[in-house]
Amino acid sequence: MTSIENQIHQQWIYSRHPTGIVSDEHYELRNQLLDTSLDRDEVLIAARYISVDPYMRINQSSKPTYNPEPHPLNTVQAAGVVGQVLASNAASLKEGDWVFGMTGWQSHARVHVSALTKIDPTIAPVSTALGVLGMPGRTAWFGLTEAGKPHAGEVVVVSGAAGAVGSLVVQFAKRHGAKVLGIAGGAEKCAWLKDKLGADWTLDYKAYSDDVTLSQEILKLTSGVDVYFDNVGGMVTDAILPIIKRRARIIICGQISQYSGGLDVAEMGPRLLQHMLYQRATIQGILARDYLHRMDEMLAIVSPWVKAGELVFEETIIDGFEQLPSALNSLFTGEHRGKLLVKV
Amino acid sequence: MTSIENQIHQQWIYSRHPTGIVSDEHYELRNQLLDTSLDRDEVLIAARYISVDPYMRINQSSKPTYNPEPHPLNTVQAAGVVGQVLASNAASLKEGDWVFGMTGWQSHARVHVSALTKIDPTIAPVSTALGVLGMPGRTAWFGLTEAGKPHAGEVVVVSGAAGAVGSLVVQFAKRHGAKVLGIAGGAEKCAWLKDKLGADWTLDYKAYSDDVTLSQEILKLTSGVDVYFDNVGGMVTDAILPIIKRRARIIICGQISQYSGGLDVAEMGPRLLQHMLYQRATIQGILARDYLHRMDEMLAIVSPWVKAGELVFEETIIDGFEQLPSALNSLFTGEHRGKLLVKV
Repeated sequence: MTSIENQIHQQWIYSRHPTGIVSDEHYELRNQLLDTSLDRDEVLIAARYISVDPYMRINQSSKPTYNPEPHPLNTVQAAGVVGQVLASNAASLKEGDWVFGMTGWQSHARVHVSALTKIDPTIAPVSTALGVLGMPGRTAWFGLTEAGKPHAGEVVVVSGAAGAVGSLVVQFAKRHGAKVLGIAGGAEKCAWLKDKLGADWTLDYKAYSDDVTLSQEILKLTSGVDVYFDNVGGMVTDAILPIIKRRARIIICGQISQYSGGLDVAEMGPRLLQHMLYQRATIQGILARDYLHRMDEMLAIVSPWVKAGELVFEETIIDGFEQLPSALNSLFTGEHRGKLLVKV
Repeated sequence: MTSIENQIHQQWIYSRHPTGIVSDEHYELRNQLLDTSLDRDEVLIAARYISVDPYMRINQSSKPTYNPEPHPLNTVQAAGVVGQVLASNAASLKEGDWVFGMTGWQSHARVHVSALTKIDPTIAPVSTALGVLGMPGRTAWFGLTEAGKPHAGEVVVVSGAAGAVGSLVVQFAKRHGAKVLGIAGGAEKCAWLKDKLGADWTLDYKAYSDDVTLSQEILKLTSGVDVYFDNVGGMVTDAILPIIKRRARIIICGQISQYSGGLDVAEMGPRLLQHMLYQRATIQGILARDYLHRMDEMLAIVSPWVKAGELVFEETIIDGFEQLPSALNSLFTGEHRGKLLVKV
């Protein structure tokens, strides 16, 4: 470990509200000399992996979302971070320890020890605290088990199936004995879903020009949908709703197709709520924070699978702190697979 | 009771699939001499009240609904009926007994005794077997209690609040201690909801040209929605979704605004599923038939209220068997209050 003196503290400041696609112009890179002073129970950490997640774009909506107010302007972009302790004034953490914290898009952070969670690097690569053993894993696990409640033999359809959450839902659903259709963009992702993740069927939504033809194709493969884990919304969801089965469960985890504009002024789509009535189905919105206090339940089940190498938890790692805004943007253009991280 | 011989057996035959509003041209009136022969355990009944319900239009959709096939053409229009026994070959029913059966739009029916339910006329007017103590009551009670789960102090919004189901939901929600906003078409219905049914607030949706202004008005009154019991869909539902509160429960009971065309080719509306995510809310479709086996639970609670005169169960009664198709049509033009019946 190098000296902590004279290091540069880099921060990405969220400085401008985007109306469409988010990019560099909505952020300012700020460099300053690292302040190494620490109060009692404070810890200085260096970020090693910084998370880039679709929810960040939701928090930039000008309308109320899960938060009454949008992400404040002219502050460090909030984000989950895996870092290492550079200096500690807390008894429970020492130099070199790995930690998780919501310290945002910055190279360093000085935080109270209570805001950090220690990571055991012997269980899995530390970066998994931002993926399969972190927020995306929690979202996938509790969204599927609590709202989706899949049974063996049922058909589970996952949109955004090659993403951080979706790729885990595919695998968790298979472990429940369900038959899984993964929907993703592009033949390469589909091949990965089938060959590596064990999806029974895959569909490249980009090969369909409208919801009706996509619907027909899904019906041909599955004969109907019991559980739909939705990360994307839009045309894919329009295709699913008319072909749900009796007492289908639809989990709204994300609506990423609308994040680059459709949150502030709703896009138009077909009215399909009559299908909820026909099939006595349920749509339930789920959010990772609601299950934070139950993380131990999920880790007790999923960690052994990770340790045993039984789960695929692909990470797309972009190198360089400077890449953070463009990495966030790339979430919406859809080129990555699994969890998108920036390595510092 | 007049002689059962030489009576005319009238039937409304569903003869043509409607694409928009349903009317006379989709039905044929058939008259024949009444066949009075009865096999063992068969009963001959004369219809006294014939039901007209929005679900009839759903069953005429060319797409699969809750039933895999639409209502068959060239058969008697299916409907709930309150009738009187004219002749009986069954031990449990005798001439003059009041019964409920799904005998459809016909003046008489010869049915097996197992297809009839005896009505006790001392509990309430017999016509309530088609309303508050029948299918609409069951829908309102179980939809609200099982899917809506209202708590004292919560805000319950009811669309189609002056209808057969909605008017009961308003009163059931009040009995749960909720604050109730009834949405209906026209000042007269709104006054009735407030003065007679005890709604805390009412709104005439026809006074609003779009969902955004309606939304603002609802928010001004209620400060947000905990339970939304939806009978209508469309613009009213568009106005509610963005102002639901945390863990709101949305019950899809009907989507009557779409029944005259929007079921076969979905109309367009704003995409609003992101609000389900924001508020971790639930949309649940409910259907009366799912609670048929639990009718005794509902009757045990609601019958005493009816007998004590504590519930308003207004009936709009149209006189004359010939009026049935136009009565069905009038459900969608919205002039009636409470349960719409045709008296034979």
